[in-house]
Amino acid sequence: MKFGGTSVAGTERIRRVANIVRAQAAGGNQVAVVVSAMAGETDRLVTFCREANPLYDPAEYDVVVASGEQVTSGLLALTLQSMGCKARSWLGWQLPVKTFSNHANARVEEIDAERLLASMAAGEIAVIPGFQGVSDQGRITTMGRGGSDTSAVAVAAAIGADRCDIYTDVDGVYTTDPRIVARARKIKHIAFEEMLELASVGAKVLQTRSVSMAMKHNVPVQVLSSFVDEDSPPADSLPGTMIVSESEMAKLLEEAQVERQTVTGIAHDKNEARVVLTRVPDKPGAVANIFTPLGEAGINVDMIIQNVGRDKGETDVTFTVPQAELARAQALLEDKREKIGFNRIITDAKVAKISVVGMGMKSHAGVAATMFKALADRGINVQAISTSEIKVSVLIDEDETELAVRVLHTAYGLDAEEVAA
Amino acid sequence: MKFGGTSVAGTERIRRVANIVRAQAAGGNQVAVVVSAMAGETDRLVTFCREANPLYDPAEYDVVVASGEQVTSGLLALTLQSMGCKARSWLGWQLPVKTFSNHANARVEEIDAERLLASMAAGEIAVIPGFQGVSDQGRITTMGRGGSDTSAVAVAAAIGADRCDIYTDVDGVYTTDPRIVARARKIKHIAFEEMLELASVGAKVLQTRSVSMAMKHNVPVQVLSSFVDEDSPPADSLPGTMIVSESEMAKLLEEAQVERQTVTGIAHDKNEARVVLTRVPDKPGAVANIFTPLGEAGINVDMIIQNVGRDKGETDVTFTVPQAELARAQALLEDKREKIGFNRIITDAKVAKISVVGMGMKSHAGVAATMFKALADRGINVQAISTSEIKVSVLIDEDETELAVRVLHTAYGLDAEEVAA
Repeated sequence: MKFGGTSVAGTERIRRVANIVRAQAAGGNQVAVVVSAMAGETDRLVTFCREANPLYDPAEYDVVVASGEQVTSGLLALTLQSMGCKARSWLGWQLPVKTFSNHANARVEEIDAERLLASMAAGEIAVIPGFQGVSDQGRITTMGRGGSDTSAVAVAAAIGADRCDIYTDVDGVYTTDPRIVARARKIKHIAFEEMLELASVGAKVLQTRSVSMAMKHNVPVQVLSSFVDEDSPPADSLPGTMIVSESEMAKLLEEAQVERQTVTGIAHDKNEARVVLTRVPDKPGAVANIFTPLGEAGINVDMIIQNVGRDKGETDVTFTVPQAELARAQALLEDKREKIGFNRIITDAKVAKISVVGMGMKSHAGVAATMFKALADRGINVQAISTSEIKVSVLIDEDETELAVRVLHTAYGLDAEEVAA
Repeated sequence: MKFGGTSVAGTERIRRVANIVRAQAAGGNQVAVVVSAMAGETDRLVTFCREANPLYDPAEYDVVVASGEQVTSGLLALTLQSMGCKARSWLGWQLPVKTFSNHANARVEEIDAERLLASMAAGEIAVIPGFQGVSDQGRITTMGRGGSDTSAVAVAAAIGADRCDIYTDVDGVYTTDPRIVARARKIKHIAFEEMLELASVGAKVLQTRSVSMAMKHNVPVQVLSSFVDEDSPPADSLPGTMIVSESEMAKLLEEAQVERQTVTGIAHDKNEARVVLTRVPDKPGAVANIFTPLGEAGINVDMIIQNVGRDKGETDVTFTVPQAELARAQALLEDKREKIGFNRIITDAKVAKISVVGMGMKSHAGVAATMFKALADRGINVQAISTSEIKVSVLIDEDETELAVRVLHTAYGLDAEEVAA
């Protein structure tokens, strides 16, 4: 079980969490719980670090920020004990959660689950601070923002858990953002691959890395809300969204005797910016001259379009970068102007990427065509396109985000019959 | 060097601390720094623990409260780095600071200084969170409130430091509380034994345990202020109070060709309460019936007086306990009423203990007589007396505390010629 920052924001909420945990343990389950820092706490600690040293040493940054989860883990253990449960906290260095030592953005190398399993077998609920681990050098590491989801999946994999339940402030994964589309439906089951694509194109419910880890270790993950009414819990035994392997999905569909939908979900992302370089020489190596320096600077380029040249031997190149990297990308390109040989840089931060995702695309033709037609019918101009086997993304004007999402949600038959409560 | 909570309350103040540390390092010294949690932080964390579980498991309590010092150590290391110093934090479990595993009140067993010394020899300033250690079981321990002073002395002893400088919000140890006596003088040198007595009878400048550890390992300790003006530091090379061994004191006095004063300092303590049990049988074992159960309950009894019995075979017994323990002591005694065989319990929390301390007492007679006469001359009634080789304490009405301290400060010739700034 994993609980995020808003679920553990204060001792009152930690008591609610403890009640949920106790109910699982009382049902005969061995339970390990991964917790985030209290909402706002990590921001407070990060601000301290920035004030202390704007160019902070990530090893010391990790010492400071890892304390937030440490506090919550101790408090949840104390609260469980106050309810008569046996419980103890296991800090990252105590288990240990060994990570590769790239501080502030560490990746789990190995979790030694031996002592943990012995403690759980003895009836102790294990409480583990998320986000933190320990390096080969015996120093505290952290896994980057949102790393607690990854911690939870890694622990679940290490102990061979039947399921990893991720409690958050929403009650599952929806076909799209319910704040935009009132008729969005909660998805009961979704394949790892689909969830991975949705997370990577803007669905914020789970950290991308946690989904890829769950896929790699085949750990079924359930996303559900920690804000359910304790007195009248959902009748459903699995009230959230289950993220499972493709073979499990196929089995479930066969059992239910339903056909797979072409599109499972629609995501949007307003954090991209568009860059156009005009009159780039249309010759071999020109494109490499643009994207090699960006790649070396760690700037993630997403959609790329090479327009048909207006003049002979010249072409416009369009691509997107994260908005936060736009200024840096622009400076870098200006720096390489001579080598690349472009005329002008045109940038636009007022764009949005809309993506439709679904394993069903593999066997259904015309998914992209449906998308372009639906958008064109409402006069929405597509500025760029990118596709993968199970995803189609388009770049549009940011002001048209909500309209586009609603139009596509209807076009792919995702609207619920009734508006969600 | 050790800095307390008010000295590190916020990143601005941590920058001042870093400046003081850097100046020491720039003077060619190898420096280890022990830091407390930011002022208010430990209280915040303790409150969380109480809310989570009023009867908290001290092992989990330690996980929560140790985080405060962890944060400060990382922030000070970051700040030193921002000034171009090499610095790194060493958490209790990293050094390690091994403690006996009585959680929430642990005592230092051993500090492994090998890696620390290597790091310091390589030019790194070591930043160590105070108050925390690690148990044999590899769990975080803490040393009780004020434990950072003890951490600092323990680290100083482990690395064989020339001096342990304890920076606080006062600039040294005074002959008495300067808020009560304007003519109180800052003491330049004081013996471990005297400081230990002063700390144990109410002088709050250092934690008692840290002084006894300094005495045991013969670590000279300097108490000084972290709030000095950075631009015009005191001309004196040792601006605070040095706490040294008795033999060092003797040497210093000989060098200065001055005679030792009879009384070094005067302390007061308003946290005691007086208990009188009337008409206790005046026979062998009666007093044991009173104090054995109190001792077993961990209630610290200080001054004891057995009055002359009014009736034959009966006597009144007077003693003091900490105010915080008064209710518990009273309940315990009521419980044993039959076995002890007293008539009434009379309690009074409005008392104060005034103590005069000085190694000079050993060779000067009449110290107690001077005290009683000075108090009697001002009509101050003495309710109880206790003495040690270098201390005389009296119990008086709380309302007369300030008057008694002023009278005694003058009587023992401690008044400065001028009122301190």
